Amino acid sequence: MMHIGACIASLLGQGGSRRYGLTWKWIRFFKNDRDRRDLVTCGSAAGIAAAFRAPVGGVLFALEEMASWWTSGLLWRAFFTTAVVAIILRALIDVCLSGKCGLFGKGGLIMFDVYSANISYHMADVPPVLLLGVVGGILGSLYNFLLDKVLRVYAIINNVSYKIFIACTISIFTSCLLFGLPWLASCQPCPLDSTEDCPTIGRSGNYKKFQCPPGHYNDLASLIFNTNDDAIRNLFSKNTDAEFQHSTMLIFFVTCFILSIISYGVVAPAGLFVPVIVTGASYGRFVGMLFSSHTNLNHGLFAVLGAASFLGGSMRMTVSLCVIILELTNNLLLLPMIMIVLLVSKTVADAFNGNIYDLIMKAKGFPYLEVHVEPYMRQLTVADVVTGPLQVCHGNEKVGNIVHILKTTNHQGFPVIDEPPHSESPVLYGLILRAHLITLLKKRVFLRTPVRIGSDAFRHFSADEFAKKGLGNVDKIEDIKLTEEEMEMFLDLHPFTNASPYTVLETMSLAKASTLFREVGLRHLLVIPKRTTGSPVVGILTRHDFMPEHVLGLHPLLVNSKWKPLRIALPRFLKIF
Amino acid sequence: MMHIGACIASLLGQGGSRRYGLTWKWIRFFKNDRDRRDLVTCGSAAGIAAAFRAPVGGVLFALEEMASWWTSGLLWRAFFTTAVVAIILRALIDVCLSGKCGLFGKGGLIMFDVYSANISYHMADVPPVLLLGVVGGILGSLYNFLLDKVLRVYAIINNVSYKIFIACTISIFTSCLLFGLPWLASCQPCPLDSTEDCPTIGRSGNYKKFQCPPGHYNDLASLIFNTNDDAIRNLFSKNTDAEFQHSTMLIFFVTCFILSIISYGVVAPAGLFVPVIVTGASYGRFVGMLFSSHTNLNHGLFAVLGAASFLGGSMRMTVSLCVIILELTNNLLLLPMIMIVLLVSKTVADAFNGNIYDLIMKAKGFPYLEVHVEPYMRQLTVADVVTGPLQVCHGNEKVGNIVHILKTTNHQGFPVIDEPPHSESPVLYGLILRAHLITLLKKRVFLRTPVRIGSDAFRHFSADEFAKKGLGNVDKIEDIKLTEEEMEMFLDLHPFTNASPYTVLETMSLAKASTLFREVGLRHLLVIPKRTTGSPVVGILTRHDFMPEHVLGLHPLLVNSKWKPLRIALPRFLKIF
Repeated sequence: MMHIGACIASLLGQGGSRRYGLTWKWIRFFKNDRDRRDLVTCGSAAGIAAAFRAPVGGVLFALEEMASWWTSGLLWRAFFTTAVVAIILRALIDVCLSGKCGLFGKGGLIMFDVYSANISYHMADVPPVLLLGVVGGILGSLYNFLLDKVLRVYAIINNVSYKIFIACTISIFTSCLLFGLPWLASCQPCPLDSTEDCPTIGRSGNYKKFQCPPGHYNDLASLIFNTNDDAIRNLFSKNTDAEFQHSTMLIFFVTCFILSIISYGVVAPAGLFVPVIVTGASYGRFVGMLFSSHTNLNHGLFAVLGAASFLGGSMRMTVSLCVIILELTNNLLLLPMIMIVLLVSKTVADAFNGNIYDLIMKAKGFPYLEVHVEPYMRQLTVADVVTGPLQVCHGNEKVGNIVHILKTTNHQGFPVIDEPPHSESPVLYGLILRAHLITLLKKRVFLRTPVRIGSDAFRHFSADEFAKKGLGNVDKIEDIKLTEEEMEMFLDLHPFTNASPYTVLETMSLAKASTLFREVGLRHLLVIPKRTTGSPVVGILTRHDFMPEHVLGLHPLLVNSKWKPLRIALPRFLKIF
Repeated sequence: MMHIGACIASLLGQGGSRRYGLTWKWIRFFKNDRDRRDLVTCGSAAGIAAAFRAPVGGVLFALEEMASWWTSGLLWRAFFTTAVVAIILRALIDVCLSGKCGLFGKGGLIMFDVYSANISYHMADVPPVLLLGVVGGILGSLYNFLLDKVLRVYAIINNVSYKIFIACTISIFTSCLLFGLPWLASCQPCPLDSTEDCPTIGRSGNYKKFQCPPGHYNDLASLIFNTNDDAIRNLFSKNTDAEFQHSTMLIFFVTCFILSIISYGVVAPAGLFVPVIVTGASYGRFVGMLFSSHTNLNHGLFAVLGAASFLGGSMRMTVSLCVIILELTNNLLLLPMIMIVLLVSKTVADAFNGNIYDLIMKAKGFPYLEVHVEPYMRQLTVADVVTGPLQVCHGNEKVGNIVHILKTTNHQGFPVIDEPPHSESPVLYGLILRAHLITLLKKRVFLRTPVRIGSDAFRHFSADEFAKKGLGNVDKIEDIKLTEEEMEMFLDLHPFTNASPYTVLETMSLAKASTLFREVGLRHLLVIPKRTTGSPVVGILTRHDFMPEHVLGLHPLLVNSKWKPLRIALPRFLKIF
């Protein structure tokens, strides 16, 4: 759901898909990076809000996990989105409760409304809960570790048919496993005071008959042969302490743990959030069973806390998880408990590895800037990482040169410099984007002589042409054919240049530059020389230049220094607080 | 509470008060700006969490309102703080419920637990709720407007005795008013099926007797002669539609509205949050009474929504208010309604003026950077606002010059440049802070000749000496007496200079510079020349240079241009989305 939301949003951000005629006039207002990013954030927030019926949780999730940076404006937009979602959701539920939409009519705004009752807990219940948190944290980080490894294995396979083959094998294996497992569980006699009919055959219900004699049910089957939601509801449910056996819970936990890991990376879409909740809930309930003699918390409560701890251990979110769990279970009295568990599990897990989304992003090789810069970056200056022969445009550039620059490099932006005779000394005028240069070349409005034409250059262009293109339909320089004569003509870049790019001195420490880059959300950062002579610009930094791989590659001594492990480990421990 | 929390935190941040011997060794780790700011944020979060028993709400409030910028680290710390608060709170409640702490034993984690019941609402109820939101927004902005005016009036008075006099008059006036008003309300017959005794005499209760005959109660008195909490509880309470009269509610609303405004700015501490809730609740309940025939929502529900709308209209927060109200009333089913109301009221109110905290900060004259820069800043470049004369230190500076610079200016930081013969051309080396210069002068470790001593200069210093000093005990340059001979000696500033300060080109647009300043959370921003000749630094920007007053002061044409109103109004309307 979250992904769907994000996709729709980013499609909007790309101005709809022209190919499928899904485009509107007003959409082009979103055709820039910031709005697109905000749209995606809001989209994912809406997704969470709809999936878990947790509007506020959705906003917080989007902000805590998605948004690499945060403004009050973005918060407001995300809130607006989820509010609309909540209202529509509520309206649809209203409609559905009057039984107009068949199977979908079930459920209200709160999904697992199992704790409206007034629960009580005391000091004595704290130790087991703490233990729950610690173990949950360890399990969560283990989960992340394994998932990361599995993803890297899947990443090796590029052939599509192999991918599909793997997906099929896994699905077959899964179904065999799930059908086989319940045979391990012994049959339970039906409780006499059960509200729903037991055993249930066919339709979804809590007491599955499976292979059992009449009057009995198979508790493992009743977990496995349900939808995830029903399984979670069963695990969270309150007065069912006698319903499940230790063995059942353990088997179910291990199964979920393994299956959710191996089935995530395959081409078939598999969720992350709900499986983690199921696994955590079963783990929690298992612990609850072990401690049932020492505490007066019921197993369902343990399941909720277990889910919280496992989520905290793998997702490493705090506030948003709190709110989502609150909105799922609708019991505020649980809050202190949930907070303890989240604190403990996140703290423990952070000591081992990063949160699951970062790991996935790394495994998929997206250039993602960490919030906490690696400590060795403090020792380096920007000048150390700036690479490559710098390609510079002049204020009035010959068309031929522009084409040459565009063809020989794949930079996305180029510094624009005014040199004598146009100015008495070399001056950094600004930064021009590759896309804009291409637009200019396509338009073929060239000048015979290098003169400044000023703002009336815009006569030939509409703002739309400089709008950010959607993925896929970006123009390539190779597609533009120019005559010899045109190659000799000139372009005045001044009107199309961003005249106030962000800059840093070459002596700036890499860590601070990276902070700037991240906080302000930049694409390009111009590096200007400390000496006030010679060229006015030393180089240009892009996101990739801040990646640890790149930096370490430049400075091998950092890689094979015996201190590196410490360098990496230390901040992680510090990061805990 | 919030304020107390923030104060304690900032005291910690200042390393305790040495005067009162409240200082510890470990505290000095907090002695820098960032940690201090984070501490204050966490402190206020803890305050909210404790005051409203809303831990998550506290975190969000702190982030949405307090923190001008936001990192996941800060979120984590704030969450940690409030989690501890929640746990301690829960433990104390546990203790108190066993009746060990007299009067304080009342209440659980949820303050106004009046909606555990399953409430239902339908499409038909939306229009009145929307109206509630619109009017609430208008009232909220009106509230802000008046409060701002009143604060500015109070700000004129500087004489302490006058201040106290005003406080006394207001308190006397208030008490007279509150005792006088109930006479306006007619007596109501006691409901036959009332759970608590009616009328109540003396102790706090819902049915105050006041001047009424036995068997009757005065509804206005029962609102006024209660604690704020009880008043709110009464207003929120569910099955009391018959309890109050229209006139009562109207009178109570107007009274609260006026009193809370005039009593905020006085020297006596007066809250902002609770009064707004009371006012909003009474307003909402009044609207509820008006619509009672057209809707099946009960009045208590209207009171909750009214409080939400009024809060949204004056505080302009969204997510945090949602969560706080949820945590106060413990009913998730209300969420969509509350979200609608907050959306509408904030949207409406934003069209009129800014949120209440910004107004207060402006009225008190704190230099606060707006998130949304004024549009005319886009037309200006950094060079336009930099004001001279610029004071620069050299890498090896004569003590006399340093003293002279410190005495003649009150800048907090100075650029350090190396000039021939120390370097072949003038080079910007970095930025040094006033406080550090003073520390150096105090230490009197001077050199006879201008040479670079390098890092062994630190021999003479402990990190503690460069730690941020607490307010009050900052050393003044005037206190340092130096001999003529010392004045002629030299200091090597290189080891003590921040060698990688943030810089912008003089051609950078003011708007972007201000974004940088705000997002990265800077104190000083060095402006370097576009031309690559002459001095390597043009000027230094501080927070004050971005203030609209300052900018407009420099460019009077912006002030008395007929477009200014539009320039100010337009972004405010756009800000809505």
